[in-house]
Amino acid sequence: MRFRLLAALAVSLAASVSSAQTPDPIAAKYTADADRLIDAALRDSAAWNRLALLTDTFGHRLSGSQALENTIDWVLAEMKKDGLENVRGEAVKVPHWVRGEESLTLVSPRKASLPMLGLGLSIATPKQGITAPVMVVSSFADLTARAADAKGKIVLFDVPFTEYGQTVRYRGAGAVAAARVGAVAALVRSVTPMSLRTPHTGAMRYDSTVKKIPTAAVTVEDAMMLRRMIARGQRVVVTLKMSARMLPDAPSRNAIAELRGSELPDEVVIVSGHLDSWDVGQGAMDDGGGVVAAWEAVRLMKQLGLRPRRTVRVVAWTNEENGTAGGNGYRDAHRAELAKHVVAIESDEGVFKPRGVGFTGSDSATAIVKRVGALLTRINANGVVPGGGGADVGPMMALGVPGMSPDVDGSKYFWYHHTDADTMDKLDPHEMALCVATIAVMAYVIADLPEALPRSAAAASSP
Amino acid sequence: MRFRLLAALAVSLAASVSSAQTPDPIAAKYTADADRLIDAALRDSAAWNRLALLTDTFGHRLSGSQALENTIDWVLAEMKKDGLENVRGEAVKVPHWVRGEESLTLVSPRKASLPMLGLGLSIATPKQGITAPVMVVSSFADLTARAADAKGKIVLFDVPFTEYGQTVRYRGAGAVAAARVGAVAALVRSVTPMSLRTPHTGAMRYDSTVKKIPTAAVTVEDAMMLRRMIARGQRVVVTLKMSARMLPDAPSRNAIAELRGSELPDEVVIVSGHLDSWDVGQGAMDDGGGVVAAWEAVRLMKQLGLRPRRTVRVVAWTNEENGTAGGNGYRDAHRAELAKHVVAIESDEGVFKPRGVGFTGSDSATAIVKRVGALLTRINANGVVPGGGGADVGPMMALGVPGMSPDVDGSKYFWYHHTDADTMDKLDPHEMALCVATIAVMAYVIADLPEALPRSAAAASSP
Repeated sequence: MRFRLLAALAVSLAASVSSAQTPDPIAAKYTADADRLIDAALRDSAAWNRLALLTDTFGHRLSGSQALENTIDWVLAEMKKDGLENVRGEAVKVPHWVRGEESLTLVSPRKASLPMLGLGLSIATPKQGITAPVMVVSSFADLTARAADAKGKIVLFDVPFTEYGQTVRYRGAGAVAAARVGAVAALVRSVTPMSLRTPHTGAMRYDSTVKKIPTAAVTVEDAMMLRRMIARGQRVVVTLKMSARMLPDAPSRNAIAELRGSELPDEVVIVSGHLDSWDVGQGAMDDGGGVVAAWEAVRLMKQLGLRPRRTVRVVAWTNEENGTAGGNGYRDAHRAELAKHVVAIESDEGVFKPRGVGFTGSDSATAIVKRVGALLTRINANGVVPGGGGADVGPMMALGVPGMSPDVDGSKYFWYHHTDADTMDKLDPHEMALCVATIAVMAYVIADLPEALPRSAAAASSP
Repeated sequence: MRFRLLAALAVSLAASVSSAQTPDPIAAKYTADADRLIDAALRDSAAWNRLALLTDTFGHRLSGSQALENTIDWVLAEMKKDGLENVRGEAVKVPHWVRGEESLTLVSPRKASLPMLGLGLSIATPKQGITAPVMVVSSFADLTARAADAKGKIVLFDVPFTEYGQTVRYRGAGAVAAARVGAVAALVRSVTPMSLRTPHTGAMRYDSTVKKIPTAAVTVEDAMMLRRMIARGQRVVVTLKMSARMLPDAPSRNAIAELRGSELPDEVVIVSGHLDSWDVGQGAMDDGGGVVAAWEAVRLMKQLGLRPRRTVRVVAWTNEENGTAGGNGYRDAHRAELAKHVVAIESDEGVFKPRGVGFTGSDSATAIVKRVGALLTRINANGVVPGGGGADVGPMMALGVPGMSPDVDGSKYFWYHHTDADTMDKLDPHEMALCVATIAVMAYVIADLPEALPRSAAAASSP
């Protein structure tokens, strides 16, 4: 304890000495503006209230749904009311998957209805459902080792949550792996460390070389129960019924607005989140919060009369959850302009308490981002860690655009992710305001710096 | 830190000096037996495994259900296999409420299905449901103050969880209060500090002087959302459909077994929990765990050959949740013997980590219980706090029988209480084993002491 205190003191002393000796021009030029943005963001619960209005009014917003299109219409109208510029919906076609009625019934050793959610993009079962014995596996390797037992079974991937990447593989690829060894359906334990008998949906993928089988998520509780039953030597039989349908691709839009740059309007800083959600809960955390925080950041610049040299463009992406048609469509439509996209910020990890940002870009750009980040020290959001971006800005990042995202306390993110419990109350107005402040300061200052963020050392002065 | 360490050392030193000087005869006589019981309880996960088998096999067990009666049959058969004595079901009639199909639909300002659970003993709605505007109130006083607005409305009691007693009043008495001012139905925010869009059921009461209206629990999330909508000036309309029915009282049983006392078999120590549950989840925490822990305590005595002077009687109560017919029936059937009931132990607060016991009895009995409790010091379960017992032993406590209950870490109890999430995984095998040890040591030693626990100072030597 004492050592850490002294170390912290030393660091803090060194920092103040150093800044006293060589004041950072970024700090000198932007501290006042950053403070105005932070003060404005923290003044009230405007962002949270706007998000509550959005989610309460429209509910969940799956790609292809009327709710999503109604929300886009509303967002565009509100952006105009905010006085933002070049407000428009940029058309893309999105996958249109519809869940329909669905159920999972334990038939043996006793009769019970089990909470479940079909996985996004899954096919339906026959109308009478699929009734088959359950085989529980602990991993892909376990399935492979016991492949001969899988034929005609419903394979349940009962994999406890460790971290998202390790666990979500079974949601994404479980059906293909199970079908490959002759299973008739696949179930996956919900991808979460915390459950109140809560099923979590999410996207799955088929492989054109393997027969498609229907697939759904069960709760942590029921995965554990079915495993116990089988461990006792009981024959576990379930009936899975799903009526999911894939309809023709539907028209949708990325909702876009701008604060045009005063000097270099063709150079663009993107701030964004995705407006679509899964068809459960209200998509408050994933990702209504990200959209509204990014939008609010630009609204505050406008309100405070802070117009940067470059354009700040807010994008409410469509179709992040099951297709990324929004991000891909933007990349295609704006491909010629991407060289002048200075940074693409996406908030899609929940508007929880921010520690700073994640950033993906050159070392020289990272150094600049850290100096900008220092403007967020008063709200303890000055951290800059490697790895920023998001699924929607991914396509443009693949073409060289630096990516950034708020780095937030995600400790409860997977409690609510893709569930009926993704609702407003999971978000705190002050924490959301801190995210708004973080995005606003980063976007405004980067959009106003004398030089664009360098994409590489070589290209430092001409992005 | 240092001060507390020294203080703790001093206390520990004082305790060992004092015990070295005047060894407690209870410690001297029972430490070895208590240690054997504790060791046996902690040796494996037998209690947890038996509870898992029970809940996995039978699921939830509402009074009147075949599942409850099947469970009672199984428990009685298992008690016989354990070699317990005088195994029998003691008949009582229990209320037979059946939930049926039910739903709550938000009709305006947008259409959505809201998770809900009808409250136990509620009447049904008409077949087409009740469609009416919602009025949100914050308390009974708020309802009274705005009574003129309630006529024809569905009143929602949106009362955040503080502690159970304060909040559950609205579940129990909300319908009567709402009906009294002309409401057509009552909704109550679920009684919980933690929700993943999780409705909590539980019993409600009607008053014969007030018109009966149907009543149900909504989730914390939706209560907050409906309040926000109304605060925005929106007219909120919902359709409540419930088909709940009250059938004629059904036959049920308290499942009872004994370890007969070696010297004073007519003097009885009760160890107990209730076997019935609500018709959601699996009633693992509430209260399968209590039943099995109490039963396991007696099984361990039997297995270890520890037969106390008095009888230890395990009771798996029926109908705690909606009637207490088990506890009342036992009191009536055994009224003449209650003077010789030395203590009635009930575990119904979840078999979480125990700190010791709660005890309701005379000061002189409390002093003895504390000396017995000291035998649980090695598992940190030696605390004795005022107030022990439970709903099922309540009727005999009202006639003077001392009451006791494990005092456990209940910090998550109301996360799961009366929900679909009351399942095995919420209980930890080691914590459950600690509860078994606590009950076993308390019951065994109190049943074997030279003198029965004194009911009052005056009656100290002749209970």
